[in-house]
Amino acid sequence: MSKPALARGTRDFGPEQMAKRMFIFETIRQTFRRFGFQPLETPAIENLSVLMGKYGEEGDQLLFKILNSGDFSAGLTQEDLENGPKKLITRISEKGLRYDLTVPFARFVAMNRGTLAFPFKRYQIQPVWRADRPQKGRYREFYQCDADVVGTRSLLCEAEIVMMLHQGLRHLGIEAFTVKINHRKVLTGIAEVIGAPGREAALCVAIDKLDKIGQEGVFAELLKTGFNEAHLSALEPFLGLQFNGSSFSRLETLLAGSPVAMEGLADLREVWKMVEGFGLENPALELDITLARGLSYYTGCIFEVKAHNVRIGSICGGGRYDNLTESFGVKDMSGVGISFGVDRIYDVMEELGLFPDLQQEGTKVMVTNFDAEAAYYGLNVLARLRQVGCNAEMYPDSSKLKKQLDYADRKNIPYVVLIGSQEMETGKLTVKHMKSGQQNELTLDEIIELFIKNQ
Amino acid sequence: MSKPALARGTRDFGPEQMAKRMFIFETIRQTFRRFGFQPLETPAIENLSVLMGKYGEEGDQLLFKILNSGDFSAGLTQEDLENGPKKLITRISEKGLRYDLTVPFARFVAMNRGTLAFPFKRYQIQPVWRADRPQKGRYREFYQCDADVVGTRSLLCEAEIVMMLHQGLRHLGIEAFTVKINHRKVLTGIAEVIGAPGREAALCVAIDKLDKIGQEGVFAELLKTGFNEAHLSALEPFLGLQFNGSSFSRLETLLAGSPVAMEGLADLREVWKMVEGFGLENPALELDITLARGLSYYTGCIFEVKAHNVRIGSICGGGRYDNLTESFGVKDMSGVGISFGVDRIYDVMEELGLFPDLQQEGTKVMVTNFDAEAAYYGLNVLARLRQVGCNAEMYPDSSKLKKQLDYADRKNIPYVVLIGSQEMETGKLTVKHMKSGQQNELTLDEIIELFIKNQ
Repeated sequence: MSKPALARGTRDFGPEQMAKRMFIFETIRQTFRRFGFQPLETPAIENLSVLMGKYGEEGDQLLFKILNSGDFSAGLTQEDLENGPKKLITRISEKGLRYDLTVPFARFVAMNRGTLAFPFKRYQIQPVWRADRPQKGRYREFYQCDADVVGTRSLLCEAEIVMMLHQGLRHLGIEAFTVKINHRKVLTGIAEVIGAPGREAALCVAIDKLDKIGQEGVFAELLKTGFNEAHLSALEPFLGLQFNGSSFSRLETLLAGSPVAMEGLADLREVWKMVEGFGLENPALELDITLARGLSYYTGCIFEVKAHNVRIGSICGGGRYDNLTESFGVKDMSGVGISFGVDRIYDVMEELGLFPDLQQEGTKVMVTNFDAEAAYYGLNVLARLRQVGCNAEMYPDSSKLKKQLDYADRKNIPYVVLIGSQEMETGKLTVKHMKSGQQNELTLDEIIELFIKNQ
Repeated sequence: MSKPALARGTRDFGPEQMAKRMFIFETIRQTFRRFGFQPLETPAIENLSVLMGKYGEEGDQLLFKILNSGDFSAGLTQEDLENGPKKLITRISEKGLRYDLTVPFARFVAMNRGTLAFPFKRYQIQPVWRADRPQKGRYREFYQCDADVVGTRSLLCEAEIVMMLHQGLRHLGIEAFTVKINHRKVLTGIAEVIGAPGREAALCVAIDKLDKIGQEGVFAELLKTGFNEAHLSALEPFLGLQFNGSSFSRLETLLAGSPVAMEGLADLREVWKMVEGFGLENPALELDITLARGLSYYTGCIFEVKAHNVRIGSICGGGRYDNLTESFGVKDMSGVGISFGVDRIYDVMEELGLFPDLQQEGTKVMVTNFDAEAAYYGLNVLARLRQVGCNAEMYPDSSKLKKQLDYADRKNIPYVVLIGSQEMETGKLTVKHMKSGQQNELTLDEIIELFIKNQ
């Protein structure tokens, strides 16, 4: 007999959590649909040849690898063992678990490019797996909710992402947030004008930590990675900048020497203009030149969303990448996407008390069960309630009233219909409202009427 | 550069398939909810200690095992290799992929029995993985849709399953089907009265094939497994029986000598009576004493559903099991459950043309994009359409009309709003109905009005 336990870094989601999670998924799904995105699902299991080399060395290590079936160790020798785990893996494992939704999407696009209607807009809501060290808020299995467009460089897509973020979050009930936006070319330009052309990657790794370690910390880190004092004093004017989007002029002055930065700023201006064209009320859009996430990946606009009034990292993120399918042999497939972080959104909504009442998902009426005769009588009541769309159940065993009411209470069932000998005789059933304790005697038709209205 | 391919036995689901699959999932989910079942999700990854030994020797082999992270091969020796794969696995793998939804559910119940409200009714819709040899209609990754009740022996649960099967399938549009039901104790009783007590397992393995290999084949197989002619001639009267449920009397006569069989028949009578009490119209319920599925597992009623007019195996199956959580140290937890086979249901609906029009899930209106000015003008049109709940998108690039209409056509978008210089001047936009080709000139307010009505 084994004492049951969850695998480390994984979670069960019981009924209450599920109701909340499904509310989040459904709201995001509806938002994606509203903007013309279509659903896609890819398998959890992918060939390692598809996954390896796409996430850097660290990512390769964090992939969960699946042992080949059957006699996987046939032909292995002492030498294979001595060669170390990295080589040994290639002998005993050909498949792994999906690490994100982007690489499988790229594989899908590459494999189906002949039949898809481009630009192809897809959304995908599925779990991914990472063999990370589990810690608070970081799990080995978690959902991603992604929407991407591939096959166009139009900045309309970026503006749509800004719209989608606003609409999705507001429909969730999250009103206080900032959509931060930056552009890869602005980062490239900053590296140029401070006299460190081509070194924006190292620059960004440091700048990215500005929030956490402050300007002093960032400078210390940059000095360690080969930047000098001249670079730093040239960089300083950029770090204090705050942009609400109404004016990029200060930045345009600072970056005037970099044509590539000007391109990035022009893109951003265009996105702002289109968001205005959409007539978005109270846009929470902010240019943040310290935003760098996944720089090796993004080639154009970069997005991130921070919720206010909570100490939780970014809740959404994304950007444009020009080489999505290149590693699968399909070139010139520019794309742009956004990912909603469900776990963090859940935590934000929980902490700020933003979840609506989700009772309608659960059982609305429980019918009591006092003896075989009353239970049989109640079957018809159940059937009628369900016919009018009411989630209903009968307590399965003939038990004491207290036990049955306790069950209804623990399951948050708002109404109980009591059927005893008196009720069967008169045809007037007792309807108990659990919260108030109020009881009414009603005929079945009146009860049905009540719950039709009550929906 | 890798040529991308799916892992063997896995599938992508593109937009069209997804719309159909989501219709099936949502219909089943709603049916489960209507009957008071609550959602649960468990992780894809479970400890092998939870999974191993639960599905028989064959099942253990079909589990996908996950390689331990990090330096998994440290300390392995030549001897470990020589001990063969079965022992080696225990050294390099501690986790596996979920093989079904029942064992994870049992683990969840065992771990949370102190806080759950019993009887606990949960539904679970998630993929499972099996390292089976892939073949037509059999995949290595597929969804299961399960609903189970644990913590009660009430036969109301069995009657509810019959109701739920009827309602779920009918809501899907599958009208022609048979819900087959049998009882483990009837099978036990048959083994007793034919003079082979305790050997119902071998008996059932053979009887289960009656459909495929006929009575002669079944008899041949039974002779091989140690039954004799006397057993066979005693068995013969059972095999030709057909039961529509209105009368079990012939069976009661045949099984009169077996008290345990009488218990089984009494259970079945009770289920029938309750289904009648529910007032189910045209019940498609049939007693099938050749139905045995998963005998080692089920202890009471056994269910299976066959769709008519298609050559596809059973589309739903389930039954009662008395020892769900015993292997996790929790005794006396009787349960009963049903599983909807989504892949087969999909095939049945496809073959019989039962899917409804699912267009409302997709984009309803595409706004054209002829140049920057017209696109900018169109942003407001888009925003207004979305505000009234209409799924809408703009073609992202300024392209020729033909290309844009072709995109709308391939994406099955029913309406296109054309905005050119004339439209911007007059404020009358052209609305094209793609199927009929009909065009109307309408103001934006009229268009909004049209799509509010049209939903």
